[in-house]
Amino acid sequence: MAIDESQPEAGYRQPTPSVPALTQILDGDHTEVRRLVRQNLAKHRGILLEAEELSTDEFRDRVRDVVVEVAATGQTALGMPREYGGAGDVAASVAAFETMAFGDLSLLVKIGVQFGLFGGAIQQLGTKPHHDAYLPGAIDGTLLGCFAMTERGHGSDVQALGTTATYDPATDEFVITTPDDAARKDYIGNAARHGQLAVVFAQLLIDGRSEGVHAFLVPLRDGDRVLPGVRIEDSGRKLGLNGVDNGQIWFDDVRIPRTALLNRFADVSAEGVYSSPIDNPNRRFFTMLGTLVLGRVSVGGAGINAAKVALAVAVRYADRRRQFTTGQDQPEQLLLDYGQHQRRLLPLLARTYALHCAQEVLVRELGVVFSSPEHDEGPRRALESRAAGTKALGTWHATRTIQECREACGGAGYMSRNRFAALKADTDVFTTFEGDNTVLMQLVAKGLLTGYSSEFEDLDQLGMVRFVAELAVESVIERTNVAKLFERVRDLLPGGEEWDQEAGLLDPNYQVAMLRFREQHMISGVARRLKRGVDQGMDAGEVFSRVQDHVIATAHAHVERLVLEAFIDKVDSLAESEEKTALGLLVDLHALTTIEADRAWFMEHGRLTTQRSKAISREVNDLCRKVRPLAVDLVDAFGIPPEVLRAEELLTWGE
Amino acid sequence: MAIDESQPEAGYRQPTPSVPALTQILDGDHTEVRRLVRQNLAKHRGILLEAEELSTDEFRDRVRDVVVEVAATGQTALGMPREYGGAGDVAASVAAFETMAFGDLSLLVKIGVQFGLFGGAIQQLGTKPHHDAYLPGAIDGTLLGCFAMTERGHGSDVQALGTTATYDPATDEFVITTPDDAARKDYIGNAARHGQLAVVFAQLLIDGRSEGVHAFLVPLRDGDRVLPGVRIEDSGRKLGLNGVDNGQIWFDDVRIPRTALLNRFADVSAEGVYSSPIDNPNRRFFTMLGTLVLGRVSVGGAGINAAKVALAVAVRYADRRRQFTTGQDQPEQLLLDYGQHQRRLLPLLARTYALHCAQEVLVRELGVVFSSPEHDEGPRRALESRAAGTKALGTWHATRTIQECREACGGAGYMSRNRFAALKADTDVFTTFEGDNTVLMQLVAKGLLTGYSSEFEDLDQLGMVRFVAELAVESVIERTNVAKLFERVRDLLPGGEEWDQEAGLLDPNYQVAMLRFREQHMISGVARRLKRGVDQGMDAGEVFSRVQDHVIATAHAHVERLVLEAFIDKVDSLAESEEKTALGLLVDLHALTTIEADRAWFMEHGRLTTQRSKAISREVNDLCRKVRPLAVDLVDAFGIPPEVLRAEELLTWGE
Repeated sequence: MAIDESQPEAGYRQPTPSVPALTQILDGDHTEVRRLVRQNLAKHRGILLEAEELSTDEFRDRVRDVVVEVAATGQTALGMPREYGGAGDVAASVAAFETMAFGDLSLLVKIGVQFGLFGGAIQQLGTKPHHDAYLPGAIDGTLLGCFAMTERGHGSDVQALGTTATYDPATDEFVITTPDDAARKDYIGNAARHGQLAVVFAQLLIDGRSEGVHAFLVPLRDGDRVLPGVRIEDSGRKLGLNGVDNGQIWFDDVRIPRTALLNRFADVSAEGVYSSPIDNPNRRFFTMLGTLVLGRVSVGGAGINAAKVALAVAVRYADRRRQFTTGQDQPEQLLLDYGQHQRRLLPLLARTYALHCAQEVLVRELGVVFSSPEHDEGPRRALESRAAGTKALGTWHATRTIQECREACGGAGYMSRNRFAALKADTDVFTTFEGDNTVLMQLVAKGLLTGYSSEFEDLDQLGMVRFVAELAVESVIERTNVAKLFERVRDLLPGGEEWDQEAGLLDPNYQVAMLRFREQHMISGVARRLKRGVDQGMDAGEVFSRVQDHVIATAHAHVERLVLEAFIDKVDSLAESEEKTALGLLVDLHALTTIEADRAWFMEHGRLTTQRSKAISREVNDLCRKVRPLAVDLVDAFGIPPEVLRAEELLTWGE
Repeated sequence: MAIDESQPEAGYRQPTPSVPALTQILDGDHTEVRRLVRQNLAKHRGILLEAEELSTDEFRDRVRDVVVEVAATGQTALGMPREYGGAGDVAASVAAFETMAFGDLSLLVKIGVQFGLFGGAIQQLGTKPHHDAYLPGAIDGTLLGCFAMTERGHGSDVQALGTTATYDPATDEFVITTPDDAARKDYIGNAARHGQLAVVFAQLLIDGRSEGVHAFLVPLRDGDRVLPGVRIEDSGRKLGLNGVDNGQIWFDDVRIPRTALLNRFADVSAEGVYSSPIDNPNRRFFTMLGTLVLGRVSVGGAGINAAKVALAVAVRYADRRRQFTTGQDQPEQLLLDYGQHQRRLLPLLARTYALHCAQEVLVRELGVVFSSPEHDEGPRRALESRAAGTKALGTWHATRTIQECREACGGAGYMSRNRFAALKADTDVFTTFEGDNTVLMQLVAKGLLTGYSSEFEDLDQLGMVRFVAELAVESVIERTNVAKLFERVRDLLPGGEEWDQEAGLLDPNYQVAMLRFREQHMISGVARRLKRGVDQGMDAGEVFSRVQDHVIATAHAHVERLVLEAFIDKVDSLAESEEKTALGLLVDLHALTTIEADRAWFMEHGRLTTQRSKAISREVNDLCRKVRPLAVDLVDAFGIPPEVLRAEELLTWGE
């Protein structure tokens, strides 16, 4: 209880980081790209207001126009091949996209649909004829398109979708059909108004036999006219993102030529013979689905950057706004000087930096995998898992942070003119689209528990249950490298078996050891539970349902560990400087709030005494007080163009 | 780890409650009133759609029209005196209001502004001449009015507000003035378009001396024309509640007659002599502010009922929607059969029932206090504290539950046609208006720490710090009755000092004992910290800032205990029945998830072994499985008119 009222320890010196230097650290590998995006954001700042003032259709058209204008600056083509005017740099393209999340998010999502999903699918699933025919229009925005995967009945279970593409050898055509309402394509971006062409995912049927899900190019409109056999309904108003024209689509025996199959990974000959360079149909499916990784990396990054906007507003406001006097004839106290207000905002600020660094690692790995000439399964699966986990944590963090910041700005935070309304409404679906977060966390756990084994693609959740149940628990652990990682870091700590008692709370080796221990322990716990359930003869579905909360907790533990390591590594990599010292405080704050949040688990598993648990809470309070004087610099360092903050009333409070 | 895979214990029999019987239990004292409101909701169901389709101004006018129509049914006048056509039953009026939260929330909030705040202030702060002149119009909605308290510079610190009312004996008038922009009245409902008359809170100045904050009737408009000296700006679009015309108001030396002072608790004679039946100016202020209690009770109840709407949709959807197969050739599994999905929704369902019961107790106490002929300070202060705490917990619960339910409905939950968009956007400000939740929790803590002493009104937060610091810690505890309550319940448990180890987890005495222990321990901990800080010579403001998180945690512990007790008492009061058994499961689920959520604290304070902590988590999972078959009945029992659920797509899934 003592430290709560303590003064900073003797010798503590507040670091004085430079904002531009911090921004450069955050901008990382993509300084130039982010600069271009910031220019585009500032130029099109008007769209934040238009979101509110225009009718739905007017706003949709306005967003479309801005998408085309932004495309003309080259920003959206960075990931496309050089021969089509791109830069062939997928990492740069994600950096551009996530930076765009500082601005209006309808614009962001429309860009994602057009260039990431639609353009990306043509590029990655198609071959040269498709590229030649469609990439130029997709890249300059003259050919707007849809990515028609999600169905009403099968949101997250793509393998089960119901749309069919039946090959008709008589005419050398595929016939695209929506067999029932559960198979209608749902909430498809660009469908309601602007989409001319769609990448449609459907079960390929040849001679009555299903070859699994494949992607086809299906024309939707000729100008404004919807083509025969296609029915499109407007999804109507949404909570947010009303500049994106979502719609549902039905296909009534729409005929497309055989060449409309995006045939990089599988083809059908004129005679109706199916062929693929990938023998295993599940692996083939997951390879095609691999295109989704780009969307997930992008959305996760967008969530993290949207959280930055909220924090930039709430922290600056709290540093201006006074409320309640601290004593007779004293001025009222700044909100950010209240302990509770620091607790609300500053751990979220630290976590935002941590997630930013985790996202940086992810984008770098994405760049490596996508630029590798080999199509190597191992790194791909690991990348997809990391992307899924970072997307889930990044978007949950966005929802939570924006909510907390809105409340921390009181009634003013509820007014549309102060940005939170749009920020809340627009980001709310981030936790759902590009993969529901809960489903994504299960994907992470599956990879972890099966060690990304060669059987990975063949396993659904229940296959995973059976697979794990057949292994010895030790061999599940061995398949991961977390046990090794844990031992390595533990060796660095004093105290032997008592490492968790004797290490300093601010020792990064201790912080990492705690998260690695938790991960390892949870993996073996889940493996044990799955095994026991199956051994007792319980139905695999029932076993999964009962262990599901542990499965998801394990995925959380894994991704949290990756995030902390990324943050520590980033700060370690910096030369000694005021910025490094300041970021070191954030590392400690993030690490200790992460442990504190799950301190019950650590106590339950013997890794935290009750005394030490309380000490961590005191240390977090102390760190909040140390970070408080840096808070405004730390949000300024995000480099959000002032033109797009759109919260003048909050940011000029008291002037 | 064992129970996780266990089957329900031998002899367990699933209760089969009747939905109408459950509804009757929930409707409690106000069956007739709630029936009337349900009729009104069904009749005006169209407004849920109009919220989306009409322009802002059209929708505001439409809401105004419906307010008048609803008023004609008598629903909104229940709390008004009989001589003005009311029922003189404030409890019934709150029951009506909170039931109205099943429908469009702009309508709800406009009703709250007009009848609760504006009408309520005239009734409670005014005297017969004011009643005669204004209550009839306020009651039938022909005189729409504002409640102009909040200022830009002083949202939650009403005592510090800046608007002045200067008495001019020469003309027998008050001069109402907005001295600077920080004193403009902000976000005032009914101001932008419909308000004719405002109850304005201002510092009363006589002969250059301030008598503190008082309420005055100030005309704003004559028809559509804003009166001279009054300036009104439209607050513009908001995240939600766009059917309410919020605005900001400035007064430029507006003259009103002396009789425009609402003079129940203080008056000014023609000669400028100030008089009041309440000598202590702070007590006078808090007495006037006591009118706010009605608004807080109402908003808390509305939050709880809005959460019911979200749960009704999400639970029914999860009982229809299938996703991912559980095995080869098996049908896909219902969402609600997944353990994780049960964990997401069912504890929130249990907590909604618990909060409903806490709200019922609060409304009953409100009825008693308001119908008492005496103006007794003690019960009033206790009521205000309970209202503040229930409002905070109820509205935080609404935000959290609606978010979780939206996500649990996936992309469909993001479409406006499925209700969540409005529900999320409209309720978001509930945590802020009628008192920011964090500030309200501080009020709760203040009452608790000072034992609602006679000095209560004189103490701001810092006065509270000094007051507590001067007492012995034991005497702080003695002033509350929680120590006695804790001892009483502990005596019922086996095991003596080991009561926390030997009692059954499902024993309500154990559950209550845990929450009472926590509350008592936290109160003394805060008292000790405050004392130590002041004893060390630290500035009271600094002490408060550093102990603030403990202060707020203590308030949480207190209100959580009240909620659990209310729920247990309610279920205890029922005759043995299937309904009682079913609700008993919910009590256990609520109590154990509440303890589980803070299990780290209980371990840190020696009241939970790690083994028992894990056992609680297993028991929660087990309870979720037992509640799951009852879940649809339990949400049907809320009695939400099907016409206003507005989520047809989700509720008819699969048909």
